[in-house]
Amino acid sequence: MGGTRDFLPEAMLRREYVIHTLKQIFGKYGFLPLETPTIERWETLAGKYGEEGEKLIYHVVSSGSLEELQPGKRTDLALRYDLTVPLARVVGMYGDKMVPDPANPKRQIRLLPRPFKRYQIQPVWRGDRPGAGRYREFYQCDADVVGSDSLLVEAELIALKVEAFKALGFADFTVKINHRQLLAGLIAWAGIPAAQEATVLSSIDKLDKLPAQKVKAELTGKGLDAGQIDALFGVIELEGSGLGLLAAAGERLAGSAAAGEGIGDLKKLLGYLDRFSVDPAHYRIDLSLARGLDYYTGTIFETVTSAQVGSVGAGGRYDKLIHTLSGGRADQPACGISFGLDRIYAAMEELGLLTQVTGSTQVLVLNFSDPGIEEVTFNLVRELRTGGIRTELGYNEENFTPNGMRAQLGYANEKQVAYAVIVGPDELAGGVALLRDLATRKQERLPLAEVAGELTRRLGP
Amino acid sequence: MGGTRDFLPEAMLRREYVIHTLKQIFGKYGFLPLETPTIERWETLAGKYGEEGEKLIYHVVSSGSLEELQPGKRTDLALRYDLTVPLARVVGMYGDKMVPDPANPKRQIRLLPRPFKRYQIQPVWRGDRPGAGRYREFYQCDADVVGSDSLLVEAELIALKVEAFKALGFADFTVKINHRQLLAGLIAWAGIPAAQEATVLSSIDKLDKLPAQKVKAELTGKGLDAGQIDALFGVIELEGSGLGLLAAAGERLAGSAAAGEGIGDLKKLLGYLDRFSVDPAHYRIDLSLARGLDYYTGTIFETVTSAQVGSVGAGGRYDKLIHTLSGGRADQPACGISFGLDRIYAAMEELGLLTQVTGSTQVLVLNFSDPGIEEVTFNLVRELRTGGIRTELGYNEENFTPNGMRAQLGYANEKQVAYAVIVGPDELAGGVALLRDLATRKQERLPLAEVAGELTRRLGP
Repeated sequence: MGGTRDFLPEAMLRREYVIHTLKQIFGKYGFLPLETPTIERWETLAGKYGEEGEKLIYHVVSSGSLEELQPGKRTDLALRYDLTVPLARVVGMYGDKMVPDPANPKRQIRLLPRPFKRYQIQPVWRGDRPGAGRYREFYQCDADVVGSDSLLVEAELIALKVEAFKALGFADFTVKINHRQLLAGLIAWAGIPAAQEATVLSSIDKLDKLPAQKVKAELTGKGLDAGQIDALFGVIELEGSGLGLLAAAGERLAGSAAAGEGIGDLKKLLGYLDRFSVDPAHYRIDLSLARGLDYYTGTIFETVTSAQVGSVGAGGRYDKLIHTLSGGRADQPACGISFGLDRIYAAMEELGLLTQVTGSTQVLVLNFSDPGIEEVTFNLVRELRTGGIRTELGYNEENFTPNGMRAQLGYANEKQVAYAVIVGPDELAGGVALLRDLATRKQERLPLAEVAGELTRRLGP
Repeated sequence: MGGTRDFLPEAMLRREYVIHTLKQIFGKYGFLPLETPTIERWETLAGKYGEEGEKLIYHVVSSGSLEELQPGKRTDLALRYDLTVPLARVVGMYGDKMVPDPANPKRQIRLLPRPFKRYQIQPVWRGDRPGAGRYREFYQCDADVVGSDSLLVEAELIALKVEAFKALGFADFTVKINHRQLLAGLIAWAGIPAAQEATVLSSIDKLDKLPAQKVKAELTGKGLDAGQIDALFGVIELEGSGLGLLAAAGERLAGSAAAGEGIGDLKKLLGYLDRFSVDPAHYRIDLSLARGLDYYTGTIFETVTSAQVGSVGAGGRYDKLIHTLSGGRADQPACGISFGLDRIYAAMEELGLLTQVTGSTQVLVLNFSDPGIEEVTFNLVRELRTGGIRTELGYNEENFTPNGMRAQLGYANEKQVAYAVIVGPDELAGGVALLRDLATRKQERLPLAEVAGELTRRLGP
């Protein structure tokens, strides 16, 4: 069906490799998994995604209740649209809940530690009539810290991002960093009314796809004059990097308290990144980074790679959003990052980083229906599996024929198995096995007693 | 919302432990992962689950299309109801598809190897108004082999089940095994018309919950006479085990070809299980096992443990079902098992098998806002993470106070962290760190240079 996908085994193995890698790193940084239900109350999602977004929410109704439906009227239940609203709901519902400490039941501890560091990797749904490369169902992957306004949060999220992209095999990637208050200060300093901030940011956000001239034309179309545009671009096109760039921006924007706060945060953040020894080749201050979404209040990030797939992740600080999204039930500062899984797979595909990823069967032991041979081959399969080798025994209950052997080897090829082990009557009599490398088609002869040990050495975990 | 669940981190860590264990074992037996979309066409699901089941299917409609809805009329899209219909759809869509062999592009190979050995672990939805312990959304976990009628499939699935329950820590569990043709033969031999087979099996299926007397009364109510009931129970209550039990049943049912086939299969299966050295304490022939579902055609299985949660998994051979469910697009024999994840968690909880499962942060390094101390603690965090230790740095940007220290230790308690590392001004001056065991509250003093190494030794992967 358009906009949905079956993930067949080969694709799944690659997806699971990426997700497993991310989970390991999330865990190392103290982030723990959360899952929320697919179906949320309509009320929880209503009014959270803007007018356009709201049209894309999928409603859900059971067959038994179809008759209660009124044309054009909404239902009570809806599919998860993102992972941020459910996070806010969870914080609102459980954020103040206390439970007995298992180590000391007389004492109460929070059910959700504060700060709450969670990651969430689940599908979300959009009721789109999707075009190419757009899906009704896709996975989101977010890591957020709720309940701390420390800039250490930002530093750790960037360190985590850098470690994750390295672990996935990317050599050339950058986390771009900017700050909403710096941008707000800049916009005010350029003489642009605060009411135009959102629309100006959404234009600046296009600078990674459009030439500066087009963005300037768009800003002119939005009513900015040449002086305002020059003032804006005079700052976002400042040359330099790191503390030097921040100092230059600080000089220009000396009169702006907001910009000063943003610059102060970014300086502190650079200091933390340095303390964590994050490789400076993989992050940089980018004063033209804007992130169109209007809920960011502090630092903003975006990750790009050398692949032509666009941004592979983004994030930032959103200190007011939990309050809004939880319907006022919780009010906590927060900061998070997302990994764009589909674009990460596309980038890895483009850069050839997925060719070595497999989790397919490693050894197929050919199955001759002969009691003497079976005694050897069944044991071999069991030994290999005990050694952690992904092993299959060919399915063949007929008397073994050359044709049956070809069918089993064909299956091994289809499944991209590394080795076939052949113990036929001649091999059994000689106390040996043939090891066939299915990629090179080379065969070698090994004493039967050594087969399991040798394959476990070559292929083992 | 009733019937849906948030899985908070502690629950998620336990769920992920179980699922990860199962995935490892699936892989060792050559099963590969498959995922199918949440949203299927209504046509794919229609007519597949019986009248009662069909009422529970959730329909899906986007907000933008609500106005097209007619009261009482179904929609075009629906939520996945189980994992078997999607499997049949996938086999029907891709089962005959050929693709170039990556190792030799001149040759074509099947996109889905045959037999197709896949596992699938995804949520399914039921539009129920759920009672206690019943959910609108729950995970299913199925492993199936499509495309082989070999009894090796059954043997491997049972071996896999036994390995999985052992790996999860169950000591006392049994895979009960029976055969649909044996039961069909028995029913005919007892003089019961074939038309009553399904209803008789559904009564027999209750024998693990109801006393035999009640089941007999139910069968009487369904029109069976005393002679028929006696004939049935004379076989299903036969004493003995393994080949002896099968021989006794074979003698009784000597005239029935169907029963003979079933018994022949079970004998062969026992032989394979023996060849694979599956521990005979963990499987047994149970002639009273019936499995109510009417799509099984051969062997049937069910797994029980010593916990009071009922069956924790089931399965069997269903050689006609792919044909039916794929709308005739594929016709392949198949056999599968399921793991009842919610009941497995409940059983493990009851038996205390989950108490040691954790993936929470292992070390919290306390954060003193002092440049000299930061130089040590930030490095320590980085070293520990490099060694694979799940490590956090306390969030504290204020000057360090006793109160800030208490807050960080409180957080460590809430998160059930194993160790806190304290390097305050005195420790820094002495070149040492305090290691605080947060369960016992005992502290020890270690030279700073040894902290990362020692903790990695104690806690490392």
